[in-house]
Amino acid sequence: MNAISSASSVQTVHVPLGERAYDILIGPGLIARAGAEIASRLKGRKAAIITDENVAPLYLEAVVASLNAAGIVSAEVVLPAGEKTKSFEHLIDVCDKVLEARVERNDCVIALGGGVIGDLSGFAAGIVRRGVRFVQVPTSLLAQVDSSVGGKTGINSSRHGKNLIGVFHQPDLVLADTDVLNTLSGREFRAGYAEVAKYGLIDKPDFFAWLEANWKSVFTGGSARIEAIAASCQAKADVVVADERETGQRALLNLGHTFGHALEAATAYDSRRLVHGEGVAIGMVLAHEFSARMNLASPDDARRVERHLKEVGLPTTMAEIPGELPPAESLMEAIAQDKKVKSGKLTFILTRGIGQSFVADDVPASEVLSFLREKHP
Amino acid sequence: MNAISSASSVQTVHVPLGERAYDILIGPGLIARAGAEIASRLKGRKAAIITDENVAPLYLEAVVASLNAAGIVSAEVVLPAGEKTKSFEHLIDVCDKVLEARVERNDCVIALGGGVIGDLSGFAAGIVRRGVRFVQVPTSLLAQVDSSVGGKTGINSSRHGKNLIGVFHQPDLVLADTDVLNTLSGREFRAGYAEVAKYGLIDKPDFFAWLEANWKSVFTGGSARIEAIAASCQAKADVVVADERETGQRALLNLGHTFGHALEAATAYDSRRLVHGEGVAIGMVLAHEFSARMNLASPDDARRVERHLKEVGLPTTMAEIPGELPPAESLMEAIAQDKKVKSGKLTFILTRGIGQSFVADDVPASEVLSFLREKHP
Ligand SMILES: NC(=O)c1ccc[n+]([C@@H]2O[C@H](COP(=O)([O-])OP(=O)(O)OC[C@H]3O[C@@H](n4cnc5c(N)ncnc54)[C@H](O)[C@@H]3O)[C@@H](O)[C@H]2O)c1
Ligand SMILES: NC(=O)c1ccc[n+]([C@@H]2O[C@H](COP(=O)([O-])OP(=O)(O)OC[C@H]3O[C@@H](n4cnc5c(N)ncnc54)[C@H](O)[C@@H]3O)[C@@H](O)[C@H]2O)c1
Ligand SMILES: [Zn+2]
Ligand SMILES: [Zn+2]
Repeated sequence: MNAISSASSVQTVHVPLGERAYDILIGPGLIARAGAEIASRLKGRKAAIITDENVAPLYLEAVVASLNAAGIVSAEVVLPAGEKTKSFEHLIDVCDKVLEARVERNDCVIALGGGVIGDLSGFAAGIVRRGVRFVQVPTSLLAQVDSSVGGKTGINSSRHGKNLIGVFHQPDLVLADTDVLNTLSGREFRAGYAEVAKYGLIDKPDFFAWLEANWKSVFTGGSARIEAIAASCQAKADVVVADERETGQRALLNLGHTFGHALEAATAYDSRRLVHGEGVAIGMVLAHEFSARMNLASPDDARRVERHLKEVGLPTTMAEIPGELPPAESLMEAIAQDKKVKSGKLTFILTRGIGQSFVADDVPASEVLSFLREKHP
Repeated sequence: MNAISSASSVQTVHVPLGERAYDILIGPGLIARAGAEIASRLKGRKAAIITDENVAPLYLEAVVASLNAAGIVSAEVVLPAGEKTKSFEHLIDVCDKVLEARVERNDCVIALGGGVIGDLSGFAAGIVRRGVRFVQVPTSLLAQVDSSVGGKTGINSSRHGKNLIGVFHQPDLVLADTDVLNTLSGREFRAGYAEVAKYGLIDKPDFFAWLEANWKSVFTGGSARIEAIAASCQAKADVVVADERETGQRALLNLGHTFGHALEAATAYDSRRLVHGEGVAIGMVLAHEFSARMNLASPDDARRVERHLKEVGLPTTMAEIPGELPPAESLMEAIAQDKKVKSGKLTFILTRGIGQSFVADDVPASEVLSFLREKHP
């Protein structure tokens, strides 16, 4: 937990991507410092802030004031909250507003919000004038530890599925203000926490053990929260640097996501039933159980994962999803349609134990199906 | 004219962009070879062919047959012809069709058409699944010598102007079949020729002289046409390699374009009045005349440029544009709004003579305005 440089209580994770390198600042009070941090790094003095209707009343004024104090003129775009906003319709609207604000190549688009706002705004920043500067001010835990890092941006295809249209467009700066998480609902905080735990389960067993011991402090705030977020950003940054355009090892970040995505699709992305991080939590337990069933890992590890996620209040079984689920066969179909499937063979992130996950690209579909039948409520 | 490798009558220009390197093949009969050339270079066996309603009846069947013979399954999308097709509306449609065709990262989108189809399809290829393979089969002279090379793709903003939304997405292969130019209208051929002449005027005085002597053979076809197109592609490729994302020297490619764009805007992009290459032709003459007026170049050079472009049948003065033009002040405003203007100062491509153009970034707006007043019909 100490490889990260720290100034006062703000930690910095540097993402060394050559000419696309950038810093992630993590700590309290960063919203108030946004203008100064941006002005010291970018040449332009114009910005378009994109946010959603939940976040705007809480933080938009503070961001605007901070920018103005630093001599940056801003335009603001407030969009509806929720996954449906990641659409072509809103992308067109955002591009239009960014052009109207006369944002040029050295000016920036600022995403102030969760992953939805980050993904949409980053895509707009990537295509307006074939790319303008981009600053992420992630306000959900999920966005702080996952979606704001790595440069994947995009929208959903209304007919063909999630995240199918987008670009890789790295931010120039990420400001993760850990105070803003205090207004996040408990459920959204827990959902983001599933991704934090994921980094431990991928290849950092010590981090997972640290979370088991310290998760309550992460939830209440303070230095443990900063530590956990910084460690997560560092973990994601390491993977991104090794594989910027997701051709290989970056796939490990999908631990728990193959099952998770199938469950999200099965609940029609209805956030009242299941949000992404909850699907990932159940999916990570299933991935550990399936690995045990394939004699790759000990069943004790699966139980340990389940115990911890349950303790923080995350769902860990399909039975906990409200409403009826489609049969195992339909879940299997959703998995087979997932983009991580190539030439008929199933690619899965499996594990040999806590912090020992790996990419398995020849998992027999029949085994997955019978496992799903068994686990189905 | 000899730095280019030649096999039979097909010439190859290699664009050495590291992991994004690709070949441009130039010569007769390439449509018939499309399937074989693609199959030998790309892993995928699925393709989505994007074309327009003028080109489809002429060449679509031949491309499909060639792909099928090489084991590549294709879907086809036929769009309306014309600049208006470079819109979000058609982009959404194309993305949808490409996803429907289950084109994955190693499969390809094929642009079969002029610059409109190339720009739109390349953009779609750049954003579907955050980037799939892209093959250009340019069918207009302009597309063969200019738009298909260099990776600039995009659409127009309905409210804010041309080419404002897009990505850099290099093709994996460009197949410039020189036979297909025989069905291009004389006017469109001449418009593309303006861009060919431009490469000579930028920094290749010998090429310009060669064109003065050989332009008729370029128009009638055969080896002079192949030579001219290959030399143009080589010239553009050199600039692109030196400055892939257009931060500096690539601006030279805009010789004649600042005036040209203003004229296109002044005629509301109405192709009945002015097509892009015609605006460029007039713009190049104006750029040479303005350079002479600024005592940078001899007036003889401007006259030589005018003489050649006139000889091939291109317009060289504003007076030749049918209909009334807005006053010089409005043209000046369009120039000032052009994206090549930074912090109030005008950036222009000027010249010291044939093949000696350079980027001037401190051109006094007052001089340009009085020049425009004088030239205005
Ligand atoms: N680009 C990537 O690499 C990547 C990675 C993971 C997830 N994602 C994407 O991220 C999205 C999910 O992100 P998310 O979970 O942040 O969703 P979200 O953006 O919808 O935010 C969740 C909810 O919390 C609200 N909210 C956000 N910050 C708040 C705050 N500080 N106080 C009060 N309310 C706040 C939002 O208004 C929203 O209602 C999905 O679209 C997913 O595809 C992208
Ligand atoms: N990406 C770049 O770097 C770049 C560079 C220059 C221009 N452009 C863009 O290119 C576009 C202009 O390209 P264009 O001049 O090819 O326009 P275009 O695509 O509209 O083609 C011109 C006309 O010729 C027809 N046509 C094309 N090939 C034909 C053939 N073989 N036989 C008969 N008819 C044929 C088309 O249907 C169309 O009607 C503009 O949108 C411009 O912005 C892009
Ligand atoms: Zn996730
Ligand atoms: Zn041009």
